Amino acid sequence: MNVEPAPLHVRDIGSFHVGGRIVRLEGLPARERISTTGGPVHSIDPNGEIVVGQMYVQYVRLAEPRAVAPLLLWHGGGMTGANWESTPDGRPGWQMAFLRAGFDTYVSDAVERGRASWAPYPQIYAEAPYFRTAKEAWEETFRFGPPGSWNSDPARRRTHAGLRFPAEQFDAFLAQCVPRWGCNDPLTRRAYDALLQRMEDGAIVLTHSQGGNFGLTAALGLPDRVRAVVSLEPSGAPDPVVQDAQRMRQVPHLFVWGDFLDQHAFWVQSRPAVQRWRDALVAAGCDVTWIELPTRGIVGNSHALMCDDNSDAVAALVLDWMREKALV
Amino acid sequence: MNVEPAPLHVRDIGSFHVGGRIVRLEGLPARERISTTGGPVHSIDPNGEIVVGQMYVQYVRLAEPRAVAPLLLWHGGGMTGANWESTPDGRPGWQMAFLRAGFDTYVSDAVERGRASWAPYPQIYAEAPYFRTAKEAWEETFRFGPPGSWNSDPARRRTHAGLRFPAEQFDAFLAQCVPRWGCNDPLTRRAYDALLQRMEDGAIVLTHSQGGNFGLTAALGLPDRVRAVVSLEPSGAPDPVVQDAQRMRQVPHLFVWGDFLDQHAFWVQSRPAVQRWRDALVAAGCDVTWIELPTRGIVGNSHALMCDDNSDAVAALVLDWMREKALV
Repeated sequence: MNVEPAPLHVRDIGSFHVGGRIVRLEGLPARERISTTGGPVHSIDPNGEIVVGQMYVQYVRLAEPRAVAPLLLWHGGGMTGANWESTPDGRPGWQMAFLRAGFDTYVSDAVERGRASWAPYPQIYAEAPYFRTAKEAWEETFRFGPPGSWNSDPARRRTHAGLRFPAEQFDAFLAQCVPRWGCNDPLTRRAYDALLQRMEDGAIVLTHSQGGNFGLTAALGLPDRVRAVVSLEPSGAPDPVVQDAQRMRQVPHLFVWGDFLDQHAFWVQSRPAVQRWRDALVAAGCDVTWIELPTRGIVGNSHALMCDDNSDAVAALVLDWMREKALV
Repeated sequence: MNVEPAPLHVRDIGSFHVGGRIVRLEGLPARERISTTGGPVHSIDPNGEIVVGQMYVQYVRLAEPRAVAPLLLWHGGGMTGANWESTPDGRPGWQMAFLRAGFDTYVSDAVERGRASWAPYPQIYAEAPYFRTAKEAWEETFRFGPPGSWNSDPARRRTHAGLRFPAEQFDAFLAQCVPRWGCNDPLTRRAYDALLQRMEDGAIVLTHSQGGNFGLTAALGLPDRVRAVVSLEPSGAPDPVVQDAQRMRQVPHLFVWGDFLDQHAFWVQSRPAVQRWRDALVAAGCDVTWIELPTRGIVGNSHALMCDDNSDAVAALVLDWMREKALV
């Protein structure tokens, strides 16, 4: 029997941009634009001030939140906050799961993507963006199938055995992807720092993939403000030679990993940096939980843990950890 | 006294992408990418399939909606759905106003912007995008000040006398702007059509600026599905020589205009097409309401009606019209 869950009692829904600064474009030739089908031609001077480096944040605040602090949801590379909304197969996503669990949620689109906008290259960004291809998503970053398994024809495409990602919804997943740059980490870090500065009553940071390094690094900058860091398959981490893990003594850390990691060069190459940071946190006496889902009998998860068909179960596991840490 | 409004009872919050198709990029040189600060170098093959032409739609559905159909909110050119969320001065935006009035809301980011993503040029889009400059926004499209009034120094910048846009929040407004292209109207129309096809129980379409022509045109395609069209300062409209206004006999239309229109070449040039379509609707016996706010004693509104400091009053006027038409 399908029982409709009780309605959420929402205080408000809204958004803001943080970070960013005014820069001036110069020396560009004049252009002409037609703004609407059948409309007149307008002369455009592309030179002048624009905003660069801002980040978009959308919040849903509950009438009666039960968590100790709002939950910030930071997406991965080439993605936007839409990752946390509905799953590609149309089920409620993690934003709803954590709202229902009593968290105010703040979902961001980081610099260069989604509603954060992006800046012209080569004038502001040094290089052109990358557009995620289906093959790269399928058999490399997101681990839907083993290397060599991608095929343009869905009937000839192979998944990993027991994959939990709903492969027939791959196009819906790919539609969520946005261009990414390789040169914007400093701008992005600055915007995340600005967001934490704004969260005066503290925040819990939950990240995915490329967001992982940003979250772990931002927490180092404001350890009194960050109540916990949850990293879903972070693709990078602070360097313990440069950063002092001792600063994280009061900040519990959870890392969650899916399946098939050893079969993909991207992950074989990316994981050691995260393991080094984990080891440094442990050596510094920090509270670290490191979960590899297969060792708990949860097999078949892709890199898109929050999109897999057991996304609710993975969210529940994160929530259990949060309850253990008295965060909710 | 500030009384907190009653909580919204929300059934669910989620999103989806509509439209779009797979295309193949070919002949691009290999690249190398560092995905995270301090991370390894990955080889990237930029050739392969990507999704093009999809649109993003975020919905908030109420436990007990009171309107006859959901409200679709379609933003203007160089903007995203963030326009309908909080105002640049941090007040609740029109999304909240219409949720509180009993509408399910569907806020979209059209093709080429925000969470809809965009496609590479010149491979897919024929040309490079335009980046909105502060000067263009200030003294041309959005009519915050008269022509010649923009200055990089806020202290030397002039507004129109009596302007309702909160000029001190101009940077926050500019941060909401995203690049726009002049070549994507057909792709965008297709995505809006796909959205209406999905709204099987009908929808009310509320548009701003560039969204106006898209809304008026989409309604012509599915007159049985569109319960009403509200156009805030549309920058274009269907051509009555090509389109049959008779098709709109059952669809009430509301047009709303702000102030200072005669002082800006963009609007002097853009309005006649809309007036022609209005005249065609009237001649066809359609239900048309055409409101120029100054004639009702509401003066000082910019092109950003939903961001001006009287945005609640303008929303209330739209709601009154909707009640008159028995839409809520």
